[in-house]
Amino acid sequence: MADIILVLNAGSSSLKFCVFEAQGGDLQLIVHGQVEELYTEPHFIATGIGCDSVTKKWGAGVVLGHEGAIETIGEFLRSQCASHRLIAVGHRVVHGGQGFASPARVTPAVLDALEKLVPLAPLHQPHSLKAIRIFRQHRPDIPQVACFDTAFHRTQTEVEQAYALPPSVTERGVRRYGFHGLSYEYIASVLPQFDGAAAAGRTVVAHLGNGASMCAIVAGKSVASTMGFTAVDGLPMGTRCGSLDPGVILYLLDELKMGARDIEDLIYRKSGLLGVSGVSSDMRALLASDDARAHFALELYAYRISRELGSLAAAMQGIDALVFTAGIGEHAGAIRERVVRRVAWLGAELDPAANEAGGPRISAASSRLPVWVIPTNEELMIARHTCDTLREQR
Amino acid sequence: MADIILVLNAGSSSLKFCVFEAQGGDLQLIVHGQVEELYTEPHFIATGIGCDSVTKKWGAGVVLGHEGAIETIGEFLRSQCASHRLIAVGHRVVHGGQGFASPARVTPAVLDALEKLVPLAPLHQPHSLKAIRIFRQHRPDIPQVACFDTAFHRTQTEVEQAYALPPSVTERGVRRYGFHGLSYEYIASVLPQFDGAAAAGRTVVAHLGNGASMCAIVAGKSVASTMGFTAVDGLPMGTRCGSLDPGVILYLLDELKMGARDIEDLIYRKSGLLGVSGVSSDMRALLASDDARAHFALELYAYRISRELGSLAAAMQGIDALVFTAGIGEHAGAIRERVVRRVAWLGAELDPAANEAGGPRISAASSRLPVWVIPTNEELMIARHTCDTLREQR
Repeated sequence: MADIILVLNAGSSSLKFCVFEAQGGDLQLIVHGQVEELYTEPHFIATGIGCDSVTKKWGAGVVLGHEGAIETIGEFLRSQCASHRLIAVGHRVVHGGQGFASPARVTPAVLDALEKLVPLAPLHQPHSLKAIRIFRQHRPDIPQVACFDTAFHRTQTEVEQAYALPPSVTERGVRRYGFHGLSYEYIASVLPQFDGAAAAGRTVVAHLGNGASMCAIVAGKSVASTMGFTAVDGLPMGTRCGSLDPGVILYLLDELKMGARDIEDLIYRKSGLLGVSGVSSDMRALLASDDARAHFALELYAYRISRELGSLAAAMQGIDALVFTAGIGEHAGAIRERVVRRVAWLGAELDPAANEAGGPRISAASSRLPVWVIPTNEELMIARHTCDTLREQR
Repeated sequence: MADIILVLNAGSSSLKFCVFEAQGGDLQLIVHGQVEELYTEPHFIATGIGCDSVTKKWGAGVVLGHEGAIETIGEFLRSQCASHRLIAVGHRVVHGGQGFASPARVTPAVLDALEKLVPLAPLHQPHSLKAIRIFRQHRPDIPQVACFDTAFHRTQTEVEQAYALPPSVTERGVRRYGFHGLSYEYIASVLPQFDGAAAAGRTVVAHLGNGASMCAIVAGKSVASTMGFTAVDGLPMGTRCGSLDPGVILYLLDELKMGARDIEDLIYRKSGLLGVSGVSSDMRALLASDDARAHFALELYAYRISRELGSLAAAMQGIDALVFTAGIGEHAGAIRERVVRRVAWLGAELDPAANEAGGPRISAASSRLPVWVIPTNEELMIARHTCDTLREQR
């Protein structure tokens, strides 16, 4: 009977999952799927590799909730993966605060510590914790491991993590946490296979998905990143604004008489590519659009990436490679081309055919700065961490 | 009878002034001074070059106000510069919005337009306008010229000036304005005397005063700057925080239950070097301090300058020179040294003796990146603009 690891990624209205089979020291993805619209019109899909694919729909207005979603996934595993034995669950948890610099096996004390971090990530943290608690009630015998989006960045210096605010605020935990850490850690783990010199040196990784950030990595360790206290800072994203003068928030409060929730809605859900273009948050739609505002949104996006790249290169005092990853980074060659063109000053030179083909190396042979496309795999990173954490604590 | 230009810089509680004598095509500073603590314990000092020096004190609790301050300066000019003829007043005005890309002779229509910009700079704009209105009442015969801290940056591209926010907000004027423009314009005007190649090429100017920002200048024109919608963004300053995740402001509202005015007070007056060090906002005090927090504040300051320098170099796709100016930039060799050390990756190499001596060139002969110390002179820039604007409109 083969062992399997379940990886859960809980959002406010969806629960994504992957199942990895532990084969010797290796982890093999055998199923991935999700339950979506948990509180409005739930639907389930699982795509198997070795198990059958399954879909299920509930009607509009049905409230399945996180509880029902976890039951659904449990049933699926029992029926479709009956020949496997679930040995652990790994969770993607957005916030590990200052304390969690590595994954943690879930205990009551760990859950309490993570609960205390909810004020730092009120939009995301509660959902991960909910999934952990529900699973714990159903299957207290199965060990669970929390893997944090922030943990990889805890190698950053105190100076890098600090805002220029007084201790009365910073001591509450107001500092740069950085996010997308599981993605960066995965890229750092495979980079030696692509570019040994960069893996030992200074690399900027651009994680361009619906959320987007960039990270400066020196010899496998995070030294700086564009996201800060929250996941709204840094690059413009699908619907998030990225860097914004804090004075703008005061203006929205004072002059536009907006409340905190309206502002949150504005900067998290109505800004970024969607807000600027007025067309879509979807990169494919923008690239296909003739709208001048869509074109402007793309120019802004590529420009801000190039600015942050200069800033991150400064953090490392140089750069030995640039890596694109995540949805846009892996699939939008037109965006990569725009960015690389703006990074010529640091020695980047595109190989258009390689870029068209999607890499892995997309820089010309003569390029002083190697540029790569490397697919990320956060779920595998979580599964690995889950195995490693159990092994260490056995 | 020689002609003189009065330059006024009105703050909330002070009014600074300079008097320039127009000698042929040249402007010569003959007096500078200020009235301070206008609403609490007013005192006046004027230091003359060609006129006598004068001080005057009012008692504690006396309210002199901007009105009284302007009368005091007027009396001083009549008595001490009786052999001169006042031909114009030039004002430093913080905000010229999107409309004013150059200085403007004050008319009722200009005053109305500037009044409409008050919501964009509520802490600064009203004081400049007050001084203009008062002077206009007293001496309607004397032409006045408004010179803007924002005007120099209006050459920046739309992409550079844009935040990734929807039109409902950006159309209200929420964009990057940049400030310290009169200082940058002055440096750009004298740079050809120091470094012709840089003046024709790509320069970063670091204006490090109590307020601090940096500007990327290509062939004399601003292409990017660190301050944004307000003068709180970008670098940490004496008491201002600089760049801050907008999510921090939501946290302060939601979790620390702070109001807009408390947050304004925090990010404008209790942060930056003062907030981080807990010691002082004064660079001299920090450099002299043994306190570990003072040391940390200095490290953070130099580090953020180096990060912004990378970002601004990216905006220009390269850099041909770095210029330090304003109080700290001109006088704090220890800060320049810390910054230049972090810019070695762009070819900067310090000449320690030249740095100690204060420049003008402080980079070693072998330095690929020339580094300069050039004193700024915003008042002279205002006086020049005032003369030029009158001449053009004659």
